[in-house]
Amino acid sequence: MPDSTPHGFRFAGLHCGIKPQLPDLALITTAAPCIAVGVYTQNLVRAACIDWNRSITPTASIRGIVINSGNANACTGHQGERDNRQMASCLASAMQSQTNVEIKPEQILVLSTGVIGRHLPMDKVETGIQRAITEQSGSLEAFYRAAEAIRTTDHNRKTVVRDWQDNGKTFRIVGMAKGAGMIGPNMATMLCVLTTDFPLTVEFADRAIRLAANQSFNCISVEGHTSTNDSLILLAPTATDVMEQSAGHTQFQKLLSEVCLELALKIPTDGEGATHLIHIQIQGANSAADADRIARTIALSNLVKTAVSGGDPNWGRVVSAAGYAGVPLQVDQMRLEINGLLLFDAGQPVPFEPAVVSRSIRQTPTTSIDLVVGSGPGTAQHWTSDLTADYVKLNADYTT
Amino acid sequence: MPDSTPHGFRFAGLHCGIKPQLPDLALITTAAPCIAVGVYTQNLVRAACIDWNRSITPTASIRGIVINSGNANACTGHQGERDNRQMASCLASAMQSQTNVEIKPEQILVLSTGVIGRHLPMDKVETGIQRAITEQSGSLEAFYRAAEAIRTTDHNRKTVVRDWQDNGKTFRIVGMAKGAGMIGPNMATMLCVLTTDFPLTVEFADRAIRLAANQSFNCISVEGHTSTNDSLILLAPTATDVMEQSAGHTQFQKLLSEVCLELALKIPTDGEGATHLIHIQIQGANSAADADRIARTIALSNLVKTAVSGGDPNWGRVVSAAGYAGVPLQVDQMRLEINGLLLFDAGQPVPFEPAVVSRSIRQTPTTSIDLVVGSGPGTAQHWTSDLTADYVKLNADYTT
Repeated sequence: MPDSTPHGFRFAGLHCGIKPQLPDLALITTAAPCIAVGVYTQNLVRAACIDWNRSITPTASIRGIVINSGNANACTGHQGERDNRQMASCLASAMQSQTNVEIKPEQILVLSTGVIGRHLPMDKVETGIQRAITEQSGSLEAFYRAAEAIRTTDHNRKTVVRDWQDNGKTFRIVGMAKGAGMIGPNMATMLCVLTTDFPLTVEFADRAIRLAANQSFNCISVEGHTSTNDSLILLAPTATDVMEQSAGHTQFQKLLSEVCLELALKIPTDGEGATHLIHIQIQGANSAADADRIARTIALSNLVKTAVSGGDPNWGRVVSAAGYAGVPLQVDQMRLEINGLLLFDAGQPVPFEPAVVSRSIRQTPTTSIDLVVGSGPGTAQHWTSDLTADYVKLNADYTT
Repeated sequence: MPDSTPHGFRFAGLHCGIKPQLPDLALITTAAPCIAVGVYTQNLVRAACIDWNRSITPTASIRGIVINSGNANACTGHQGERDNRQMASCLASAMQSQTNVEIKPEQILVLSTGVIGRHLPMDKVETGIQRAITEQSGSLEAFYRAAEAIRTTDHNRKTVVRDWQDNGKTFRIVGMAKGAGMIGPNMATMLCVLTTDFPLTVEFADRAIRLAANQSFNCISVEGHTSTNDSLILLAPTATDVMEQSAGHTQFQKLLSEVCLELALKIPTDGEGATHLIHIQIQGANSAADADRIARTIALSNLVKTAVSGGDPNWGRVVSAAGYAGVPLQVDQMRLEINGLLLFDAGQPVPFEPAVVSRSIRQTPTTSIDLVVGSGPGTAQHWTSDLTADYVKLNADYTT
């Protein structure tokens, strides 16, 4: 456990007034221009910040990120684009006054999350940025305040902090994420910002974050609604000597993937109204892509998700969801286990005690669904949350 | 309103014991071999009855249909196939004893609906078929009893009866459908049987039912889980003179499409736990297929469905669902109306009074979502139900 955030970064989190009470504005600033790489939503309807960040990353000249919660600044047209640029300009000039170094708006990334279709209260945001710049610090406490300020319906802040040794030197990585609803598995499904003091090249960082995202944030969902604002960003200092194949870099990639997975799993675990994390593992598909499609189809079935929340051993819903995934499968080779209990084998139902399966589901926070769909080499895994009446209540009344 | 069912058909519906109390077995028999055409689920995991019926239809030699509810006979392997054939054999021999005409099992269609993965109690089913054959009649009351017996979680039986004149002669069509959950829009999404005394050729009937299905049962959903047992079947007497292009046939096609749409809309209207029917209309897509994909993506979004059930004017969920449908759209040409109230125009939010939109949603049983996504020629419509806590409660505890 590190005693500080990565060297060269400062954090702040505070309440600026977008939300009635809770923290809603976070900053990350860097002591020197650093590498920033990102993975963004595939939604064609996207927030102003997505287009802004996409036009900037990958880059080696980032000086900061400003993040607001409570308002997605999505579907807000030209006004939204102007507001987004103004957020970047405001942080750039505040930093410039402090440092006497020229900082351009294009050296600042912007992330927004919250309600779609409303204009930002820019006076509050600008006052907040001015205040945050005076409060920022490299302490873990400041990092946790920033992580608090990016929450929307999340029950708790979602953070991971790690340190490790490389060639006798200590490095650190800290990550914060937010997300509990509007989580759909089509490339980066929430906000997540990672900072490290391990030096990287832009090329290495860009490859590393994509690999990590594919094994983590791209394998989770809550209800499958791909958001307008999803972003995963990694900040790191620039490597002076390029040693991409070093043991240190291999270790970093492994660690980055672990941190991303740990942060990603916090999202369906905290899924709106969720009482179970559901871990779906597919084997025997024709390809990994086919296995992934089956896993996602099962994960998005409300009937599967309600069966889990109710502890109902209604395994036909899992098998039938696989059947409409749109990829080939061999029914007579299908085999299903829920929490290790065999329910369907070689396409035939297996006699089982419903009360035993039901008790196992009810008493375990994670429900394992292991499905064999044939004898092919394709495997995949996916994590999602169950569906409860509380999810419906939360979302029936979100903006009103 | 006709005073009887179509000439040449008899119906029965009763309780045979698959369910604890409610009617669970229905028969339709024909006085002479008739035309049967069908449209079936696209699910690769499908019930024994689907394979059986698919191997038989389209045909001109059908003598009856036996339908059970309470058990889908799906994922039941070879035993399920034997049980399905036995249902057909049992009805065929009971009819043969009564009529002294040879009737083969292959002249009987079978439909099953209910829980997946359990074997049928064949002794009860066979006793039920024997009894039903003695109770059948051509009265509307018998038809309604049959319609009662195919229900599962449906609140009410779903029937449409019509008559019309053609060349001074009266013809009739009656249809029964069931479905309230596991309704996913991928070709015929429930059970529906239509019988008419209007004579048809196999070729005309087969085309007619596909056209009608595409504009009705293929445009509805509840939660989008494509069932293992979906079937839509039309029975009609064989036309002796082939006059497919006659005004009478054109009128029949129109009527068939109307009856299918009327029956189809009863399904999301009665969607499990539903409080609103949602009618989604898309304009301006590049093609009808693109428009359809956008409509379905919106229809399957739990966030859209919960916003409607809660009367929450959270229109960003509709627009963002369109954005991840996977087809092109022009954000700066997008325009959204909910219940005729303009909320988003030319990619910009329109100022509106949330309480007015909320009241309109709450006070109207059908919520209209009208979305323009560009200036292309593609249009589509789709009907779905909203998502409530009651849907979750119903489905969290279905088999236990």
